[in-house]
Amino acid sequence: MVRKLQVGVSGLGRMGARHARHFLERTPRAELVAAFDPSPEAQAWGKQHLEPYGTKLYTDYDEMLKHPGLEAVVVAGITTEHAPQTIKAIAADKHVLCEKPLSTKVEICEDVLNAAKAKPHLKVLCGFSRRFDASYRDAAEKIDNGEIGRPTILRSQTCDKFRNDDYFVQYAKFSGGIFVDANIHDIDLALWFFGQDSIVKSVTAVGVAARYPGLKQYDDVDNGIAVVEFWGGRIAYFYSSRMMMAGQQDTTEVIGTHGKLTVNANPALNLVEMHELGGVRREVDQTYYDRFEQAFVKESNEFTECILDDKKLPFKLSGAIQAVKIGCAMAESLKSGRKIDFDDTGVQIKEARARL
Amino acid sequence: MVRKLQVGVSGLGRMGARHARHFLERTPRAELVAAFDPSPEAQAWGKQHLEPYGTKLYTDYDEMLKHPGLEAVVVAGITTEHAPQTIKAIAADKHVLCEKPLSTKVEICEDVLNAAKAKPHLKVLCGFSRRFDASYRDAAEKIDNGEIGRPTILRSQTCDKFRNDDYFVQYAKFSGGIFVDANIHDIDLALWFFGQDSIVKSVTAVGVAARYPGLKQYDDVDNGIAVVEFWGGRIAYFYSSRMMMAGQQDTTEVIGTHGKLTVNANPALNLVEMHELGGVRREVDQTYYDRFEQAFVKESNEFTECILDDKKLPFKLSGAIQAVKIGCAMAESLKSGRKIDFDDTGVQIKEARARL
Amino acid sequence: MVRKLQVGVSGLGRMGARHARHFLERTPRAELVAAFDPSPEAQAWGKQHLEPYGTKLYTDYDEMLKHPGLEAVVVAGITTEHAPQTIKAIAADKHVLCEKPLSTKVEICEDVLNAAKAKPHLKVLCGFSRRFDASYRDAAEKIDNGEIGRPTILRSQTCDKFRNDDYFVQYAKFSGGIFVDANIHDIDLALWFFGQDSIVKSVTAVGVAARYPGLKQYDDVDNGIAVVEFWGGRIAYFYSSRMMMAGQQDTTEVIGTHGKLTVNANPALNLVEMHELGGVRREVDQTYYDRFEQAFVKESNEFTECILDDKKLPFKLSGAIQAVKIGCAMAESLKSGRKIDFDDTGVQIKEARARL
Amino acid sequence: MVRKLQVGVSGLGRMGARHARHFLERTPRAELVAAFDPSPEAQAWGKQHLEPYGTKLYTDYDEMLKHPGLEAVVVAGITTEHAPQTIKAIAADKHVLCEKPLSTKVEICEDVLNAAKAKPHLKVLCGFSRRFDASYRDAAEKIDNGEIGRPTILRSQTCDKFRNDDYFVQYAKFSGGIFVDANIHDIDLALWFFGQDSIVKSVTAVGVAARYPGLKQYDDVDNGIAVVEFWGGRIAYFYSSRMMMAGQQDTTEVIGTHGKLTVNANPALNLVEMHELGGVRREVDQTYYDRFEQAFVKESNEFTECILDDKKLPFKLSGAIQAVKIGCAMAESLKSGRKIDFDDTGVQIKEARARL
Repeated sequence: MVRKLQVGVSGLGRMGARHARHFLERTPRAELVAAFDPSPEAQAWGKQHLEPYGTKLYTDYDEMLKHPGLEAVVVAGITTEHAPQTIKAIAADKHVLCEKPLSTKVEICEDVLNAAKAKPHLKVLCGFSRRFDASYRDAAEKIDNGEIGRPTILRSQTCDKFRNDDYFVQYAKFSGGIFVDANIHDIDLALWFFGQDSIVKSVTAVGVAARYPGLKQYDDVDNGIAVVEFWGGRIAYFYSSRMMMAGQQDTTEVIGTHGKLTVNANPALNLVEMHELGGVRREVDQTYYDRFEQAFVKESNEFTECILDDKKLPFKLSGAIQAVKIGCAMAESLKSGRKIDFDDTGVQIKEARARL
Repeated sequence: MVRKLQVGVSGLGRMGARHARHFLERTPRAELVAAFDPSPEAQAWGKQHLEPYGTKLYTDYDEMLKHPGLEAVVVAGITTEHAPQTIKAIAADKHVLCEKPLSTKVEICEDVLNAAKAKPHLKVLCGFSRRFDASYRDAAEKIDNGEIGRPTILRSQTCDKFRNDDYFVQYAKFSGGIFVDANIHDIDLALWFFGQDSIVKSVTAVGVAARYPGLKQYDDVDNGIAVVEFWGGRIAYFYSSRMMMAGQQDTTEVIGTHGKLTVNANPALNLVEMHELGGVRREVDQTYYDRFEQAFVKESNEFTECILDDKKLPFKLSGAIQAVKIGCAMAESLKSGRKIDFDDTGVQIKEARARL
Repeated sequence: MVRKLQVGVSGLGRMGARHARHFLERTPRAELVAAFDPSPEAQAWGKQHLEPYGTKLYTDYDEMLKHPGLEAVVVAGITTEHAPQTIKAIAADKHVLCEKPLSTKVEICEDVLNAAKAKPHLKVLCGFSRRFDASYRDAAEKIDNGEIGRPTILRSQTCDKFRNDDYFVQYAKFSGGIFVDANIHDIDLALWFFGQDSIVKSVTAVGVAARYPGLKQYDDVDNGIAVVEFWGGRIAYFYSSRMMMAGQQDTTEVIGTHGKLTVNANPALNLVEMHELGGVRREVDQTYYDRFEQAFVKESNEFTECILDDKKLPFKLSGAIQAVKIGCAMAESLKSGRKIDFDDTGVQIKEARARL
Repeated sequence: MVRKLQVGVSGLGRMGARHARHFLERTPRAELVAAFDPSPEAQAWGKQHLEPYGTKLYTDYDEMLKHPGLEAVVVAGITTEHAPQTIKAIAADKHVLCEKPLSTKVEICEDVLNAAKAKPHLKVLCGFSRRFDASYRDAAEKIDNGEIGRPTILRSQTCDKFRNDDYFVQYAKFSGGIFVDANIHDIDLALWFFGQDSIVKSVTAVGVAARYPGLKQYDDVDNGIAVVEFWGGRIAYFYSSRMMMAGQQDTTEVIGTHGKLTVNANPALNLVEMHELGGVRREVDQTYYDRFEQAFVKESNEFTECILDDKKLPFKLSGAIQAVKIGCAMAESLKSGRKIDFDDTGVQIKEARARL
């Protein structure tokens, strides 16, 4: 019989529970042997959905790391635990798939990176789900084939459906703000399509809190726009929103010197269109997961394959730090009202100003 | 100063009034010198919209034909007058643009054709507006260029928006039925794209009266489907409806041996899309005129140009007879419940049947 | 630990191998314990892809039926074996998921139905994959909710990408012809949306062999059009083709008295669009499996669930016989050049004809 | 007979010749009585296309202004002449339709505005063609109706098809740069949808010269991105490009607190789609005029109507100055690499900076 990767999931909240099921049910080469979440709700959910299939439940993360035979950990709990748990798992010699962002602070990201560098035999992956999406991969392949010439301009947005509650405000307390939380994906796309080693030249961000004034207390907004110049003549510009009415709309456009391509310029829930009084209507994905479910499943399968077959991960961990760095600069620019410049080694230039 | 074509319009109903304005305002090389319509409403409309610009109004068609200098007549009144007025105009040595159909009877169409043949110096055009539409012309050009190989299958539909009144039932009294009235355009497209001299091999038509049961008294339906085989291995299939909720939807698809093309597969009123609760919505053309306004204007300009510059008309009058012949066979098939076969010269084969 | 359904697959050809993997890897509640295919290639494939995961390979179908603990069989070999293998499996008291069509002959389908009726505790499912597709299900739900009024007209097509080889000609020997092979899905959709108990009133079919003249020897065509009237005022019309250049295009449109809906009116491989010289281009699914992969996975999961939880199957086996009956009438109409009529109990009316 | 507006056109270059024909042929209530352009080519063109229809040609602008009965002038020559000719025409008591931009300098724009203010009986219109486009008007109406809530974010782009020559470089000498030349339309849209009296808060612009390095000598770029904050919590962001391969793509998106709308998110030349090897392809408008021809015709008709019927122009001249002011700030930001701030009366804040 074939060997299966022994996986544990940390965090059984919304996203963690999904990861758990992906490894349990939709990752043929892996077995979900352990799961950690101290909350009573999560334990109850695990007893019903995981335990009957052989997954052992833990209320202590360190205990889970000692689960016999455990080889890999999925870190999918709250953002502030991403880095500490990843570092602990690495210390325990486990491969790690960590949800994005590694941290909302650059220095902490670097701690993770250093921990990973010290154990080069481990696979440490930051879960940028779009990297596993069939359409983005097709786009990347076409770009690599030179079909649009040199990628020059990237436009990308992560826009959530409006929620008639205070979820987004509550969430803003620890999310790092809309740029680090939502546009982090778009920044990662810029690094993917422009080259992982692109060096940031400037960052400007603005925003408004149009539907959730409560965000202001956390220096956050519900609509953010940011422009990032990279050295070498490339520009990315981003939009993020929490107030889409139709549903989730994550769209990307890459403009090259000899063509352009779009990903999800026309969002749609499925292939149905209604012709009715008022016109022709199609429904739209409601959540991030509606849009990227298959990508998450691909992610768990490829993570498993990379470990079992000792293959290179599809992208480097260091990029995740770059993305956080740029996201944090956006948040800073939003707060200060200033454009932030970087020298050609990517080091931020500090300035003094005076109004005349 | 340049010479302008002297035009008269017969009929100032909905479509006739539009023709009048197209010649008056949007056909630079023509002058609308005369207009005929005996109805008081039409006369009142003409007094306001035409007379101040120099158009003389008539209540007698024969009188209008005697208007000094009149060169061309647009026949746009009720269907039953199309043929007699066209024949009279030809007799008076006028060029004619006649609205479709020439007649709902094949023999009468042939009378018009014979009248026209006797005066080859006159331009006699049957107004198949799609022939002047930019998209259909682009399609024709691509087909002529061989971009889809040999056209083999044609699907085409003419579907009207549902009306919450008895207009369609009233109209059915003299329209010749949905196939002759609506699908006549689609039949003409088949003749255009398959070749004007295509010979019909069989006709089958079925239909239902789903929203307007009153249509049954006229052997008419509000949803009709017909299949027409042509000798030489080509098939056209048609749909017509009077109960679209979103708006007008006239779509055509031409499938060739090496590719296919569609015209108006995704109807839209304009370039606006609404993202709102429920999804993404676009409005749709409400009427035939919304969709084909520019084609009608092109028609009046080209008709004028063909006369002034003595150019060949873009298509032959004989095709209009073919279209009526096929449309009438559809109506017959609908009524009899039988497939109608034609020999390879296009002559209908009569059969006797007995149930076993 | 939870109980998993013990499944065997018969046939490891293209589609059978997919079914095998779906049950092995993507159906969490099932175990693929056995697989049958006598061909050396299939055995080799099975040794590599199935055996290491615990699936026992058989070269004798009857032996596989005796596999200890086997509960259900997927019949996915050549069409002519569908019915005999299904009947044997039922006799051996196994649940069956049989690929469509049950048979290309109506009488044989009825044998299967009778066998199944004799063992009402068994779940016997005919694999109409579109029944498990998320978009078709959404359409069905909207129709059930009355969102388009009473479904009146259905247009549906199954169109394959052109292949530059003689596959379609070879395949025609035993496929039952394009209507039974391809449009069977569309007929099933008509029965779904119009009601499983709809009674056929007439069938007319025409076709041409435009790219594969070799099809004529089997009375088959590469482009077929058929119109089916149902008693009670409903009409379905169908198109099938083997010569699409862009890819697979399976489109359905349901027109109701108060609205219409389309499924896959704009086929697309993924969410990428290329803006390039010549315009905006999107790629298209190349095969039936590209389009319906998720539906097949859903099918294996629901089949499993219906057995384990003793739920009702999502549709009745008798509908599959209806679909074959209508498909065969299309093939007969194509061959005879005649419209075929049925009385209001669905019995075919035989006629004699004489040309006058 | 009815009175017709007596119009003269200044400049018979590409756009001027179009204006001339629009007034000659497609503006029923106007007469093109005069046209000015000193170039021999323009005179030759005018002799062929205008003179035979009664238009008098001039080689001296001042002479044209003296044309007996002349009531209105269309200023459509080179950008640097827009302001002087408009001011002269106003002085001669003529109504003026002036092509955008009034000038590439804010002060000169203000001179025009002052000249116009001094003669309030004259209609002076700056030709922002999108204001007359049916889709933008539909968008405006929907916004006015509150269909998207409060407009908060606007994204708009003006992107030209790549040209394989040095036209764009030559043009950059006097165009004022890509922001003033191309995005001026998008800025005007922001002022339209956010309110004509919106006060700019900050402007940031970046860009690259990716295909036309020759642009750098004029401080211009071929891809520009700009973000404009307005006081009161609204943001517009813009993109302009000279290197689209598929064709012209001018797209606008207005995001409101309760919905969003797009204009031309899916550009298309017409209603034809090609299904061919490689996928489904539609062609795209090649030029600005392809996209906005009908809007220009509407413009000439409405300008005429406003004068003849003494109606209010559809938008104020002062907005045109605002648009130029913002466009110039973009150009300045691009050049300086700095964000430009404005106080809440719209006055630019000057700053000193020092790198620490």
